[in-house]
Amino acid sequence: MTELYDKIAVIGIGLIGASIALAARHGGLAKAISSFDADPAARSEAKQIGLPVEIQDNLADAVSDAELVILAIPVGAMAKVAEDMAPYLAPGAVVTDTGSTKRSVIRDVAPKLPETAWFIPGHPLAGTEFSGPASGFPNLFKQRYWLLIDEGNVEPAAKEKLESFCAQLGAMVEWMDSDYHDRVLAITSHLPHLIAYTIVGTAVDLETDLKNDVIRFSASGFRDFTRIASSDPTMWRDIFMSNDEAVLEMLQRFSEDLSYLQRAIRWQEGDKLFDLFTRTRAIRRSIISEGQDN
Amino acid sequence: MTELYDKIAVIGIGLIGASIALAARHGGLAKAISSFDADPAARSEAKQIGLPVEIQDNLADAVSDAELVILAIPVGAMAKVAEDMAPYLAPGAVVTDTGSTKRSVIRDVAPKLPETAWFIPGHPLAGTEFSGPASGFPNLFKQRYWLLIDEGNVEPAAKEKLESFCAQLGAMVEWMDSDYHDRVLAITSHLPHLIAYTIVGTAVDLETDLKNDVIRFSASGFRDFTRIASSDPTMWRDIFMSNDEAVLEMLQRFSEDLSYLQRAIRWQEGDKLFDLFTRTRAIRRSIISEGQDN
Repeated sequence: MTELYDKIAVIGIGLIGASIALAARHGGLAKAISSFDADPAARSEAKQIGLPVEIQDNLADAVSDAELVILAIPVGAMAKVAEDMAPYLAPGAVVTDTGSTKRSVIRDVAPKLPETAWFIPGHPLAGTEFSGPASGFPNLFKQRYWLLIDEGNVEPAAKEKLESFCAQLGAMVEWMDSDYHDRVLAITSHLPHLIAYTIVGTAVDLETDLKNDVIRFSASGFRDFTRIASSDPTMWRDIFMSNDEAVLEMLQRFSEDLSYLQRAIRWQEGDKLFDLFTRTRAIRRSIISEGQDN
Repeated sequence: MTELYDKIAVIGIGLIGASIALAARHGGLAKAISSFDADPAARSEAKQIGLPVEIQDNLADAVSDAELVILAIPVGAMAKVAEDMAPYLAPGAVVTDTGSTKRSVIRDVAPKLPETAWFIPGHPLAGTEFSGPASGFPNLFKQRYWLLIDEGNVEPAAKEKLESFCAQLGAMVEWMDSDYHDRVLAITSHLPHLIAYTIVGTAVDLETDLKNDVIRFSASGFRDFTRIASSDPTMWRDIFMSNDEAVLEMLQRFSEDLSYLQRAIRWQEGDKLFDLFTRTRAIRRSIISEGQDN
């Protein structure tokens, strides 16, 4: 319950932006919270549900005088928004983002900002398969990691304040570099999403009877994939376009491993399957003991 | 709350067997429930947790005089158990199973049974990633589908009684043929498990630092895969060995679809990704409206 900023601006009022606004308001972290979304429908929805922020009708009003600007938008939109808002940023303003890829965001945003602003890229590891202002909730970040990228040229006080802000939203903050971030996310998030989208797509293309029964009898396994594969299409298209290098590297490894199992099935080599299935169980236990699931 | 059988035998006291025993006892569906597991540790655990059945020390005692025998064992164990129990089956006994593949079970079990027994293969679409007697619970089958296979040579009264038994365990019964069952399950369950095992295996093989951070930061996407990939290794090895034909067919389709997306990522064709990601969202809505998830 520390008021850290006089004014913050949340740009993009989707699941993440709305949740940040709600959590910041609940925590009393800023005197004023200003918000803008390029989509008029999102602005209307935010007003209609009474999101406790000032919804602005243009980006300039939202960011002017803000000490902290949070870009909670698809990574493909970062370059344009950074360029558009740059002239209106207050001197000393800290800009952060919540995008799922970090190298592309640094490439797209950093060169556009004035020298008087600090850029600290970020990424909260939190979300649901829902999107839009009405899907936000203030506890989204509770006990979730929030990764911050230290590009080395930001004054320590600005970094400490942002870290404190994220922590008071409920998150556990970790600092890392952007290359490493993009590789970790490629395997923990991007590849799983790509695979889930693929298998659900494979099912969509089955002949009609079979497809209908796949939907009816989805109870085991497939259902989890459909949840993942119902995430926001724009956001995910942008992620794959932006983290293509790391995703393609992990995908190559995955494809080799899948071919190995495919061959084991074809040649009835059950011991190879059993061996892998035993090793993968151990990973689950590690995750449970890390407290990241229950 | 109808007592349908004087005595039933549940062979295999894992997640499924223990849950059937508990649900049948709670529902008062049989006067006596006899049970056997080839693994002495499972028999001890079942006794220790007070599973409300008579645990027998051999298969013959478990099945003798039983009107219904339920084989809740890995599909790779079906042939041997069917052969071993055949001499002890009561005339007119109904044998069913809970295996995830049906063509292989029919091939392995049907020829071993005496002509005086009826075989009605079955498959409850229910489970968790846990295994063993202590993972069973009586509500496991509630509102889940229970697929029964009509091989055409079973007397109607026996089929009706088994259907009623499954329904009173809480399940929704559907009849289908074994070929169709194996194709539907290949895409809804077997392929998702294979893929989840693969990607978790890919992560296991990463260099140590990266692997540890994959575990720490598993919050989005990957975590769901680790849950799926912690299912019982013996059961799943047997499934892939037994449903190899349908799994390899679906895997081929999946691999083609994945290559298409891989190429789209490499060539920055975002519209192809966006198009698929939009179509897969619709499937999720269908599943939610079918009431198979919430």
